[in-house]
Formats: sequence, C-alpha cells, structure tokens
Amino acid sequence: PMSTQTFTVSGMTCHHCVNAVTEEVSVIDGVTSVEIELVPEGISTVNVTSDHPLDVESVRSAVDEAGYELTGSA
Amino acid sequence: PMSTQTFTVSGMTCHHCVNAVTEEVSVIDGVTSVEIELVPEGISTVNVTSDHPLDVESVRSAVDEAGYELTGSA
Repeated sequence: PMSTQTFTVSGMTCHHCVNAVTEEVSVIDGVTSVEIELVPEGISTVNVTSDHPLDVESVRSAVDEAGYELTGSA
Repeated sequence: PMSTQTFTVSGMTCHHCVNAVTEEVSVIDGVTSVEIELVPEGISTVNVTSDHPLDVESVRSAVDEAGYELTGSA
C-alpha cells in the first residue's frame, strides 16, 4: 500500500535547496515521489510518497545530508 | 594588468546561489577569481578579478543566466 507522509524542514531558501532535499529524500528505499512547498523564510513542507511507511530517522538523515534540518513529521 | 571590480547582486539566498553565480561569472573571458559576500536577505557583493576590465553587460548577462539580478557596479 502506498503511503504519503508529511514532514517539515527548515533552512531551505530557494529552488536549489528544494532540489538538494528532493534528491536526497528520493533515494530512500521505497520513495516514489517528493513534493516540497517552499517557504523561503520559514518552515517548508515536504510530502513524501512511498511504497511503505518510512522511518522518520531515514528521512531526518537524508534531510541532514542535504544540509537542512528536519523539524517535524505529521 | 589585473583588474578587480565590485558588483552587487540581489536574490541570492544560500550557498547554492553563490555557487551558481560563481560558476557563470567565472567563465567570462579573462576572469581569474570570483568572491561573493552573501547577504541572504539583501544585496550581496560580488568581487570579480580579471586580466582586463570587464564590460558590465557581460557580467549582467552571466548573473542573469544564473537566475539572479545585477543591481549595480562600482
């Protein structure tokens, strides 16, 4: 069953940042799509669709690798 | 004789932006170094060193190509 989870990430300011996070999160096993709503001066929303529910820590690690901070999951 | 010119650029918000502008300006004929002081919420300063004085329009074009706006030269 497909799963879509919403996360929040701080520090993204431009489309380059969005690309960096999208690339890192996209390679997590099972992820089929990543959609990001950029809030340049605030907390951006990241919707991740995957073929199984993702461990938050795997997403945190990917976001960190891109150079940003996971601030929450919902 | 080497020349160093200072330009101002708006719209750069993060190190990815700095990299994009650096890459575009670096390939202008004669340019030997590009140094950018990032001001994420304002006007950043771009110092360009070259082996001859650059035409402002060549720099404007490079900055535009990177996706940002040249706001001045000094």
